[in-house]
Amino acid sequence: MRRDIIKFKAPPYIIASASVVGRHERQGPFGSCFDSFDDTERFGMESWEQAEGEMQRKALEIAMSKAKLSDRDIDGIFAGDLINQCTSSSYGLLSFDIPHFGLYGACSTCALSLLISAIAISEGAFENCAAVTSSHFCSAERQFRTPIEYGGQRTPTSQRTVTGAGAFILSHRASGVKITEAMGGISCDMGIRDANNMGAAMAPAVVSTLLRYFDATHSSPQNFDKIITGDLGFEGYGIVIDLMEKEGFDMRQVYTDCGLVIYNREKQDMHAGGSGCGCSAVMLASHFINEVKNGVLKNILFIGTGALLSPMLVQQGMSIPGIAHLVKIEGEM
Amino acid sequence: MRRDIIKFKAPPYIIASASVVGRHERQGPFGSCFDSFDDTERFGMESWEQAEGEMQRKALEIAMSKAKLSDRDIDGIFAGDLINQCTSSSYGLLSFDIPHFGLYGACSTCALSLLISAIAISEGAFENCAAVTSSHFCSAERQFRTPIEYGGQRTPTSQRTVTGAGAFILSHRASGVKITEAMGGISCDMGIRDANNMGAAMAPAVVSTLLRYFDATHSSPQNFDKIITGDLGFEGYGIVIDLMEKEGFDMRQVYTDCGLVIYNREKQDMHAGGSGCGCSAVMLASHFINEVKNGVLKNILFIGTGALLSPMLVQQGMSIPGIAHLVKIEGEM
Repeated sequence: MRRDIIKFKAPPYIIASASVVGRHERQGPFGSCFDSFDDTERFGMESWEQAEGEMQRKALEIAMSKAKLSDRDIDGIFAGDLINQCTSSSYGLLSFDIPHFGLYGACSTCALSLLISAIAISEGAFENCAAVTSSHFCSAERQFRTPIEYGGQRTPTSQRTVTGAGAFILSHRASGVKITEAMGGISCDMGIRDANNMGAAMAPAVVSTLLRYFDATHSSPQNFDKIITGDLGFEGYGIVIDLMEKEGFDMRQVYTDCGLVIYNREKQDMHAGGSGCGCSAVMLASHFINEVKNGVLKNILFIGTGALLSPMLVQQGMSIPGIAHLVKIEGEM
Repeated sequence: MRRDIIKFKAPPYIIASASVVGRHERQGPFGSCFDSFDDTERFGMESWEQAEGEMQRKALEIAMSKAKLSDRDIDGIFAGDLINQCTSSSYGLLSFDIPHFGLYGACSTCALSLLISAIAISEGAFENCAAVTSSHFCSAERQFRTPIEYGGQRTPTSQRTVTGAGAFILSHRASGVKITEAMGGISCDMGIRDANNMGAAMAPAVVSTLLRYFDATHSSPQNFDKIITGDLGFEGYGIVIDLMEKEGFDMRQVYTDCGLVIYNREKQDMHAGGSGCGCSAVMLASHFINEVKNGVLKNILFIGTGALLSPMLVQQGMSIPGIAHLVKIEGEM
């Protein structure tokens, strides 16, 4: 029988994390928490794809410097992004002389990279490794919808892809913040075909993962200080609350979503909220990790949410499956 | 200091493998070794991308049936492919009720998926898991070069993307074929800009990985029954022989490449040979695993080779980095 939960015998620590963002993220409620930003969102590069790669490079550089580690100390980088085909991570991280393991989990890639890094560290294959993810509003629009130059009108359910990169260093070295459990997501296809309503495509995957997790661990939302999803935004957030209520779980007290909080809904016109790999990566790498480190949050469930959207199969009339990977992060304060 | 080699304390076994191919692969020298084929290369589906997904589904179904395992016995699937964004694996494997971990290593994805699966099994996170990869000539041409309907003339250095999917089941259960070591590749960018000469882009990455491996293990080509690269084809194969000779290693006796042998060069007009994730996946899943199982080969180095080619960054004038992941497979005969 399947082992649904991965319980880490020697829980890996997150010894450093870093976040790099664009202008709108800096102007949002958590703007001062991020390590670095560039208001031009170009990061000195000539194209949006290269700018996104440069954000990843910068995020990893900052995280490694916080951890006081150099290239020769890191056994591997687990990295991915949204761009065809993992362009930002492949090109952005080229300057590091470190083995590179490419991942693709759509917007769930931050949780996916933490989950696989945690397996590699906890079980002794690696001593130190890095998990890196990014998204960029302009490269993602060109990739999945229309280039920004086209000036398309956005629908009310659409979310804004966060311009941001997050990097995490995992290690055996104690740091006060550790990953104690993880659970891989099973893909869910509920027939959503609207590439402008990713929240609805991903919400059922979150519900599937949460129900499997609560069942396997005999727990409920009230056992956690916070349950944080990646980028469901206002549409998906409401769907999760409703679907979980039908299953008998009241999520209201502990549940939040990175896409819901990264922008100021009243002052910033971001429709249904933030999205993208970078959304959950920068929020976890800054605000949430800090709250765990400071003892404000003792244990959190961090759930990366991905819409396994392929522009080509959407053109072919196929629906958009969702996936949700879970990691449990605990503080030692 | 980095641990370059991952030595598995409890080496995971490959307990089953399966290969599904198209017409040209069936007509090649190893045609009779593959488990299943469809001469129409459509596999009953309406588009090439969906056909590629169906090949993955079929390959995993056959491998699970050989291993006598059902969905509930498999802790996770590590899968990837070449199509924007991992479409074939995301959609093709939807029908399995198994956690899905998406990977992207371009054509190195077979070795990458075996490497990460091996970490997950060996170190106890998982009991059984699957590694699945594919490529399809028609979907890859549309993705990376021009749709086949365009009828573009192929250059002599171009390789034919193999239409094929390979699936492997890894487990603690002894089977006679085990993965004893692995080494992640470091990306190499030697300035190749020609999307029709992937062999040249990938060969330096193979040399980098081999030199790091020989150095760390104090070994040489003569310590192995076979060193097998994924899909360098005739161009890249020759470059590896030459570059390794300059470094003092004679590869001629033990070195082969899946792209070199999968087609009959005299009877089949495949230019520089085969390529794609499916190339190394179907050759390893059939012929090479059988030779290890039967004791013909006692130990092999299997090196997945990937050109981290992004159509968009090639259009932006960027060069094509290569990567090469290594797994050491040993027989117990």
